[in-house]
Amino acid sequence: MNRRKPLGIAVIGAGRMGTDHVRRIHEVTSGARVAAVVDVDTERAKALAARVDGCTAYTDPAAAMTAADVDAVLIASPGPAHEADLLIAFEHDLPVLCEKPLTSDAASALRVLEAEQRLGHRRVQVGFMRRFDPEYAKLKALLTTGQLGRPLMLHNRHRNVASPPFFTSSMLISDSVAHEVDATRWLLGHEIAAVTVLRPAASAGAPKGLCDPQFVVLETDGGALSDVEIFVNCGFGYQVQAEVVCERGTARVGDGNALVTNMAGRWGGTIAQDWSERFETAYDREIQTWIDATRRGEVTGPSSWDGYVAAAVCEAGVRALEEGGRVEVALMEKPALYR
Amino acid sequence: MNRRKPLGIAVIGAGRMGTDHVRRIHEVTSGARVAAVVDVDTERAKALAARVDGCTAYTDPAAAMTAADVDAVLIASPGPAHEADLLIAFEHDLPVLCEKPLTSDAASALRVLEAEQRLGHRRVQVGFMRRFDPEYAKLKALLTTGQLGRPLMLHNRHRNVASPPFFTSSMLISDSVAHEVDATRWLLGHEIAAVTVLRPAASAGAPKGLCDPQFVVLETDGGALSDVEIFVNCGFGYQVQAEVVCERGTARVGDGNALVTNMAGRWGGTIAQDWSERFETAYDREIQTWIDATRRGEVTGPSSWDGYVAAAVCEAGVRALEEGGRVEVALMEKPALYR
Amino acid sequence: MNRRKPLGIAVIGAGRMGTDHVRRIHEVTSGARVAAVVDVDTERAKALAARVDGCTAYTDPAAAMTAADVDAVLIASPGPAHEADLLIAFEHDLPVLCEKPLTSDAASALRVLEAEQRLGHRRVQVGFMRRFDPEYAKLKALLTTGQLGRPLMLHNRHRNVASPPFFTSSMLISDSVAHEVDATRWLLGHEIAAVTVLRPAASAGAPKGLCDPQFVVLETDGGALSDVEIFVNCGFGYQVQAEVVCERGTARVGDGNALVTNMAGRWGGTIAQDWSERFETAYDREIQTWIDATRRGEVTGPSSWDGYVAAAVCEAGVRALEEGGRVEVALMEKPALYR
Amino acid sequence: MNRRKPLGIAVIGAGRMGTDHVRRIHEVTSGARVAAVVDVDTERAKALAARVDGCTAYTDPAAAMTAADVDAVLIASPGPAHEADLLIAFEHDLPVLCEKPLTSDAASALRVLEAEQRLGHRRVQVGFMRRFDPEYAKLKALLTTGQLGRPLMLHNRHRNVASPPFFTSSMLISDSVAHEVDATRWLLGHEIAAVTVLRPAASAGAPKGLCDPQFVVLETDGGALSDVEIFVNCGFGYQVQAEVVCERGTARVGDGNALVTNMAGRWGGTIAQDWSERFETAYDREIQTWIDATRRGEVTGPSSWDGYVAAAVCEAGVRALEEGGRVEVALMEKPALYR
Repeated sequence: MNRRKPLGIAVIGAGRMGTDHVRRIHEVTSGARVAAVVDVDTERAKALAARVDGCTAYTDPAAAMTAADVDAVLIASPGPAHEADLLIAFEHDLPVLCEKPLTSDAASALRVLEAEQRLGHRRVQVGFMRRFDPEYAKLKALLTTGQLGRPLMLHNRHRNVASPPFFTSSMLISDSVAHEVDATRWLLGHEIAAVTVLRPAASAGAPKGLCDPQFVVLETDGGALSDVEIFVNCGFGYQVQAEVVCERGTARVGDGNALVTNMAGRWGGTIAQDWSERFETAYDREIQTWIDATRRGEVTGPSSWDGYVAAAVCEAGVRALEEGGRVEVALMEKPALYR
Repeated sequence: MNRRKPLGIAVIGAGRMGTDHVRRIHEVTSGARVAAVVDVDTERAKALAARVDGCTAYTDPAAAMTAADVDAVLIASPGPAHEADLLIAFEHDLPVLCEKPLTSDAASALRVLEAEQRLGHRRVQVGFMRRFDPEYAKLKALLTTGQLGRPLMLHNRHRNVASPPFFTSSMLISDSVAHEVDATRWLLGHEIAAVTVLRPAASAGAPKGLCDPQFVVLETDGGALSDVEIFVNCGFGYQVQAEVVCERGTARVGDGNALVTNMAGRWGGTIAQDWSERFETAYDREIQTWIDATRRGEVTGPSSWDGYVAAAVCEAGVRALEEGGRVEVALMEKPALYR
Repeated sequence: MNRRKPLGIAVIGAGRMGTDHVRRIHEVTSGARVAAVVDVDTERAKALAARVDGCTAYTDPAAAMTAADVDAVLIASPGPAHEADLLIAFEHDLPVLCEKPLTSDAASALRVLEAEQRLGHRRVQVGFMRRFDPEYAKLKALLTTGQLGRPLMLHNRHRNVASPPFFTSSMLISDSVAHEVDATRWLLGHEIAAVTVLRPAASAGAPKGLCDPQFVVLETDGGALSDVEIFVNCGFGYQVQAEVVCERGTARVGDGNALVTNMAGRWGGTIAQDWSERFETAYDREIQTWIDATRRGEVTGPSSWDGYVAAAVCEAGVRALEEGGRVEVALMEKPALYR
Repeated sequence: MNRRKPLGIAVIGAGRMGTDHVRRIHEVTSGARVAAVVDVDTERAKALAARVDGCTAYTDPAAAMTAADVDAVLIASPGPAHEADLLIAFEHDLPVLCEKPLTSDAASALRVLEAEQRLGHRRVQVGFMRRFDPEYAKLKALLTTGQLGRPLMLHNRHRNVASPPFFTSSMLISDSVAHEVDATRWLLGHEIAAVTVLRPAASAGAPKGLCDPQFVVLETDGGALSDVEIFVNCGFGYQVQAEVVCERGTARVGDGNALVTNMAGRWGGTIAQDWSERFETAYDREIQTWIDATRRGEVTGPSSWDGYVAAAVCEAGVRALEEGGRVEVALMEKPALYR
């Protein structure tokens, strides 16, 4: 593909995730455009494609993947459709971001592995998005430094307000704990060797018949334990927390938004050393907001008036610094344009 | 301008801020491209422009602003150059994002206000980026609900590790406290009526002769007080904190990354209700990372192998749930492709 | 006095503070007994004295202070009575704990100072109890180590739910900020050289006419600034917070119950190193609870049954450790005595 | 016993715990005196008894328990001696506080239960001191309100810096997890029905051969799970944490010193409503410090000078409030007596 052009992406699946990814690629991220939207429901595909200039709707994934302006595929169809979608993408040797799960079971996942090996190079990124969460990324980075020593235990909490109506007891494992399975492997760098699932009394807040919460213990081939509280009808909020216990300290994410460690007699975290770290997101949002408003033909955000007032107040402040005492600020009357 | 095309931006100033904004527009944000880079130092302009395909280097702002592919201007030149840059942008009726300060003093800012009024419509957004910081935005949103009552006081902390060599005592006001001046006006919705600056003993960690720290008290026309600790050689980190004290409660940002309130006998904050809120950034970063890697011709992130293992472990987990006891996980040997 | 006997204390004033101190000396602290209670209201004195065996009620402080079993005086009478009470105690050369304020104004305080100097030795401890708060004590201890460098600023918050009906605007200073005046002097080791009081708009939650909140700036002879937010009708709770800003770091108390520092790129606090530190209060309360119950002829707290069950569960646990797998706990039926 | 006299206590065992309890009863708590100290090592008994006026040393527990001034017994001897000590106390029908464990195993504990039943009334309180920790007590109180719903899971962390040389793998259960066994039963109000112990890889920081850490899962007869991380060589500090997960929320203690809950979309805790709650400990310590100093013939704490200065500064403050502006504080020179 031509690296000077934006990447043309075919999004397969126009449901909640697919729609959100189309918005993301169109409005948030850089370097790509949504070239195609695919859904078995043709109206749904058209409606979503219509949000993006030059984006084509398809019902057939294969047709989308052969379109001239499609360079890569994002699979957000239901899990059972993933295997077929992946195999078509392999036929056209296209890079794929496949939402989790890769496929619905281990047997079909094996077939995908085999097909990708026949291609002879990796084509697939699976959508385990926790690896990209800033907190999890900081936790991984800390573990990688080795300063806490070897990881021995990982305590996970995974809580949802309420489960959707179709949720079954086994989906707490296959749909929810699947994230902790990946997080455990990624954070610890171990494979999982055995699984035990304990069933406390079901919550009165869970639908009748659902085993909720569950407590899952994963044993790794590196001798570590990873325990997971999965509680999908906790009622109070969505919470994902992880605490790694290492030989010389612990590190925890998910309580607020910071990484908190216990090490050598102290608990706490790091302080930013620079404004570019503290306000990185603010700058990104400032520029994105300005671009979006400008493209709509609008001017929003702090105005020239705000700039003028800041200058006038700071001038009074500098006089107050130099002369001592209280200095009043004299502003011109606010012009109509800025009201 | 054609809303279907990306916005063509001329970035004026190829210093630290200009360079960072070029990176941001090119690699992070959506909907715009850097069409021109302007700097009095022609080599610096060329070096920065070369990072973006199809971007032209200029030394003359006016030349850049008349280029066909320039739709908007981002001014990141030194403050004393802002007035001239703004007036040229007004001549061409271009939308402008002007880094703070708008201009170097109140008199020149007034001239800009007058010129913009002659245009008859607003063209300028000033770069007070704190308004776009997620924490400040949450604080503003909370104040807007009115549930805390009227704001009475605002306590601000603004700390830098060390000041640059050229920093003067008055720059603590005009360069640093300028942010709190805008934040106070924006958060409280008041104008500032008077300023007092108190000078505690200078820190031994500050350069000789610099009044650092300072303590600034802003009085607003709404009867509120906003106090600012400005300490630009605190040594330990970069910290920006704000606590609003209202008639029925307080709200604070900047300790970690969350908004903490005191209200009705309880302190604390809100819990996300949905994964899309908790992991929004993770999804954005996941997609951006995939786009970037794909454009480089690489495959990174969780692999098909990771997808397969998750499926296999979850299958064992479901058996453990259904049958009770400990279930071992049987994995195929890891293929060479994924090692 | 005979150090082998408990200290005999005369408590002057049977109001809220006096009553609470009688309870404290009688039921909480060690090494003293309430020998006398004094109040101008004879019924009130008698009612309070009746709570303690062998305690005598008086209306005349001088009579109490000459009683054979009185070794020391605790003054908890209204402020305007303090001077007279103190001078009588000096006549009898008795040690005094005098609730704050020492006296109602500086002139009468001077007379007390002079009288104590005539005695030739110190006799008075003034009731600035914050110096004995574990958090303030930790803050003071940290400052004393010098590891944060010289203190430059102290930010104080002092908030009450609601002020009593008799409270006046000047009492926010003389009654409430008096605590921060002492805390500032004690923490920083400086004298206070000047005071400024700023008046933000009064809260709608404050009684009509009361200047509440106020913002007080204390300047010390050591060049430090101490600012105090005093807000006695904040509505949401009672909060006392202090943050010291030093040359190389900051330290804060009052958010929760821990001392939080910013130093060298990290925020956080210390972790106990020993159970005796973590559970010191638990042991104190355990023993006091047992003494109190035993004196009442009762047995409360964990029973022999609890001790037996712990032993039985731990035996099962040791088997589970040694043999692997899940071990059931076999308990005898709970005897009636322990139900 | 005569309720008007202090309770006379015989402390059995003059080791670390016994010594600490003697100090506690003598110097901290109210209403009791140490009448006897018993230890098989007569010199050790004498040395400890010598710290308290009128306290007698014994080597024979029975002799101490028949002394006229002994009303109650505190057993702090080694665990294997507890059974015999308890049976003697029962003979004399004395109230007992018995340090944990009650006895060394379930069989001997059963014999104690039977003996106490023969007495016909409860005589023993077992030293599970966590029930008296203010945080655990708040957690229990919150659970008792029922506002979080039924408890489903309890997550416990129990970490020590380093284990003593004699510690064995089974002592992690019988000596350390014994506390969580009692805490689980007390907090949840359930009995424990089964135990599983998992053994992650041993930490390199643990003595060779010691299974440390361990992960213990307790199943209760109420259907709840209580998991315990026990890690006695964690290196960084002593930490005891507990998080209860209920049907409608969670509550956690041990991170700092406060109870933090998740409920109905919010995390956080309560704010004190009154100074007597916030500063209860400060008042207790203030009075105890004053009593102790006075008995030593010393005067410490805030002096009359501090009282005078507070009055003078507050007078300046009131003038600053009434007149506006900055008011200087005029103090007399500090007299020699207060330097």
